[in-house]
Amino acid sequence: MNHFINAQDSLVTDAIDGLLETSDGALTRLDGYPHIKVVCRTDWDKSKVALISGGGSGHEPAHAGFVGAGMLTAAVCGEVFASPSVDAVLAGILAVTGEKGCLLIVKNYTGDRLNYGLAAERARAFGIKVTMVVVDDDIALPDLPQPRGVAGTLFVHKIAGALAEGGADLDAVTSAAQLAIRNMASIGTSLDTCTVPGSAKEKRIAPGMAELGLGIHGEAGVQQVAFEGAKKAMDLVLEKLAPKLSHGSYVAILNNLGSTTPLEMSVLAHELANSEYAKNITHIIGPAPLMTSLDMHGFSVSVLPIDDDNAAYLAMPVDLPAWPGMTKISPVLVRPLPDGLSPIKPIPSENARTRALLDQCCDLLISAERDLNLLDAKSGDGDTGSTLSTAARALKGSLDRLPLADPTQLFRAIGDELSQTMGGSSGVILAIFFGAAGDACASGKPIPKALLSGLDRISQVGGAAKGDRTMIDALEPALHALPDGIENAAAHAREGATKTAAMGRAKAGRASYVPEENLIGHNDPGAEAVARLFEGLAKSM
Amino acid sequence: MNHFINAQDSLVTDAIDGLLETSDGALTRLDGYPHIKVVCRTDWDKSKVALISGGGSGHEPAHAGFVGAGMLTAAVCGEVFASPSVDAVLAGILAVTGEKGCLLIVKNYTGDRLNYGLAAERARAFGIKVTMVVVDDDIALPDLPQPRGVAGTLFVHKIAGALAEGGADLDAVTSAAQLAIRNMASIGTSLDTCTVPGSAKEKRIAPGMAELGLGIHGEAGVQQVAFEGAKKAMDLVLEKLAPKLSHGSYVAILNNLGSTTPLEMSVLAHELANSEYAKNITHIIGPAPLMTSLDMHGFSVSVLPIDDDNAAYLAMPVDLPAWPGMTKISPVLVRPLPDGLSPIKPIPSENARTRALLDQCCDLLISAERDLNLLDAKSGDGDTGSTLSTAARALKGSLDRLPLADPTQLFRAIGDELSQTMGGSSGVILAIFFGAAGDACASGKPIPKALLSGLDRISQVGGAAKGDRTMIDALEPALHALPDGIENAAAHAREGATKTAAMGRAKAGRASYVPEENLIGHNDPGAEAVARLFEGLAKSM
Repeated sequence: MNHFINAQDSLVTDAIDGLLETSDGALTRLDGYPHIKVVCRTDWDKSKVALISGGGSGHEPAHAGFVGAGMLTAAVCGEVFASPSVDAVLAGILAVTGEKGCLLIVKNYTGDRLNYGLAAERARAFGIKVTMVVVDDDIALPDLPQPRGVAGTLFVHKIAGALAEGGADLDAVTSAAQLAIRNMASIGTSLDTCTVPGSAKEKRIAPGMAELGLGIHGEAGVQQVAFEGAKKAMDLVLEKLAPKLSHGSYVAILNNLGSTTPLEMSVLAHELANSEYAKNITHIIGPAPLMTSLDMHGFSVSVLPIDDDNAAYLAMPVDLPAWPGMTKISPVLVRPLPDGLSPIKPIPSENARTRALLDQCCDLLISAERDLNLLDAKSGDGDTGSTLSTAARALKGSLDRLPLADPTQLFRAIGDELSQTMGGSSGVILAIFFGAAGDACASGKPIPKALLSGLDRISQVGGAAKGDRTMIDALEPALHALPDGIENAAAHAREGATKTAAMGRAKAGRASYVPEENLIGHNDPGAEAVARLFEGLAKSM
Repeated sequence: MNHFINAQDSLVTDAIDGLLETSDGALTRLDGYPHIKVVCRTDWDKSKVALISGGGSGHEPAHAGFVGAGMLTAAVCGEVFASPSVDAVLAGILAVTGEKGCLLIVKNYTGDRLNYGLAAERARAFGIKVTMVVVDDDIALPDLPQPRGVAGTLFVHKIAGALAEGGADLDAVTSAAQLAIRNMASIGTSLDTCTVPGSAKEKRIAPGMAELGLGIHGEAGVQQVAFEGAKKAMDLVLEKLAPKLSHGSYVAILNNLGSTTPLEMSVLAHELANSEYAKNITHIIGPAPLMTSLDMHGFSVSVLPIDDDNAAYLAMPVDLPAWPGMTKISPVLVRPLPDGLSPIKPIPSENARTRALLDQCCDLLISAERDLNLLDAKSGDGDTGSTLSTAARALKGSLDRLPLADPTQLFRAIGDELSQTMGGSSGVILAIFFGAAGDACASGKPIPKALLSGLDRISQVGGAAKGDRTMIDALEPALHALPDGIENAAAHAREGATKTAAMGRAKAGRASYVPEENLIGHNDPGAEAVARLFEGLAKSM
């Protein structure tokens, strides 16, 4: 079994019960399991024309997903791809039909026509008013006198549903359904067949090929063509529909046949909206899975001329999550990018002491390059030293451009420089560190406290805390100790860095992917860099 | 290429444009293609707290599908499974944030945290109020200090969205988001990995196995287990969540990870609603694709304690087709089957002439058995004669039970008998024929006209007309001629039957699948049966 089912013979009944249990009490079913599977509205009072549809299962959300005010009154569900029995249809008719009668909306398959037809006959023997329409929208086989019923069925559900909900009589509802059926056309294409639970998948469609005009039960299509991308696939479908799109405005259903991803469906919607064959298509329903074929990786397009009447019916809101609504196809609205994407260039200023300090920090990191690389080779890819020294060299080269006299602007500027020259996550983390330190300076904090604010922020963003075997293990104690002098800070940094050697699995950063035995006994290179920096500064003061 | 896309590097931008074109003008994007892909609401006036989410693409409808009043203000989209750039996030923040500030909702992946974090820092340098929450709901790896962010993110979008829409300030929105994140938990399972466009599929999960606790980018799960059906799969997931479901009420998101069919998702919903591990789960969002992983054949469950506050936020309606709404899990409501499923048993009555006529008709069909079978062997499976004679023998045996004195009831009763004894589509068709004839009798039509009404009905239901090489080709002319005498009817029936031999491809019924060369020169066996019947009756009168 490779489906989320319990057994083939309980698949449809389990699924219907799941639908009911998550319907907020809006749906009920007749007590006829396993043979009679009829889903009805709980809010139905028989005061209007009832609409009944259904057929084999495997096309969900059709049909039970469309039972609700403004669409179907009941859905009669067969087993997967199998027509429901005459008794099941009759039970549905008898259960929901009142004096205004009911319309059966049947897809054009022999089993469905006959079973719904006989059930209608039996119901009429009880004096019940029953009409039946047969949806035959599939134009895949143009010479076929009995075209199949596919996703265009949804047009009928919605238009007839809106009319019936509005109180129209059975003749009016039936005529509107017949008119829609006469005018609609559908065709589908797929990159693969569907997988019927319990059956082996038919590997009919070779990789790189697409089948055009296949049915919703995995029936073979009219032709196989080389698949050359979404645009060509959509154009091929629309070209077949083009003779039906001659003049006026049309609404299209863009139907997901099963497992086409939402990304692909949106790409197909884009191609439909922009195809030269679809100039007359002004409205769209979907993209959405409406009449699926289990997990088929394909789509279908159904079209219908649209006028004021049926536009109103199709647009009328219904409280059914499966119904995506109808929208007018609109051009892509584009807004200009906001100002401020390029960081504000600071105004350079001079401060000899700050310049010397920065210069020294950079030199210290540059001189530690080889040692830090060797240390990183134990737990990472051996480039911590190079990454830091490259950034340090770039920062040295940028000193003339920096606002050395203004701590707030200087921190922000250093952050921007590092995010550009350092690359990777280290660059981003240091940019956040200095940026947040700048913010803290701006709000009046002294520099050690401002740097601690930076540390807080990178803890929050990066998710690391003290004890996680990162540079924080050295930096945090150093910054806390800094108000008591640089020697003190250096001592705490060293102590923190040394502790990392005893830490097992890293809890953040790249070293978290390295086995514990490779880490124990070696300082974290980030923490070591911090310790060396503070030690170097302390020695020279 | 085996996806409905045009090229990998235009996949996400094409899809976003398709989403916009079918959004009825509700969505716009920033003019930053291809690097900056930011989707925004068109109705946004910056008067409330802005909510920005996003991340790699491939999780649709998350996140752009949730941009709208009551949920997100903007979605920043990366390439498939890749974090958007700092500039893209910053552009989103700058484009939509007003004086009330914005909340960034970030899933816990290093790239997202860092890029959103740095963008927030840059935005703060402009004086913009920005907070950030990191969703880490995946409990698959319990020891991981950095759990991944998965479908629970939707709880945050909805709760924070409802609060922001209601005018709450940034602190309140942020606190509510943090509280939800602290309390939620998620885990997923899958029967297969996902297919990344342009990459080969990793065949990690063998048929018959399921992976538990895998990520939404196809990252390997915590364990592989033998797959033993929907109930066990759901229980396995719920068992992992059980420690989080200790007391009180909970809401669950039942998320389709991609290509799980709606049937399977409903089965899973049924199992969730009835699992012993889920007794405290009172509400559900879905089943629906909310945070997918391309076409992954799997599902995830996310849980959150529910109270009056967040229940109101989660239930607040939003005009977004991708949001399925929250429903209370309810028991399956079952209604009794309606009366009338067993056909009303007619009251037997006698009419010697009718009895003799029926008896004769049956004998004529029985005597034609061998000839009709031989004829059918040319175009079908050679059983027309047997099917008809079996039904005729049964009908002969039922004469004592039939209401022979009442034509209306008699036609209906013959229809019911035939549908029970004849089987297959022929039985259904004849049942409809006689049922409709009975209806017509009831409305006062004379018998030949009543029979023509039956013929009309089977034409409508079966979709066949004169000229389609069926029994209609003999029956229709015979019934039209019947008012002028049985000899006349017999002559017309024979003429009609003979014409079928010249008809090429059948247009209805089983013979429509038979090649033309096998048909030409042979009468249709149904039409031949009708001709023999009328000829036999004529001869004896």
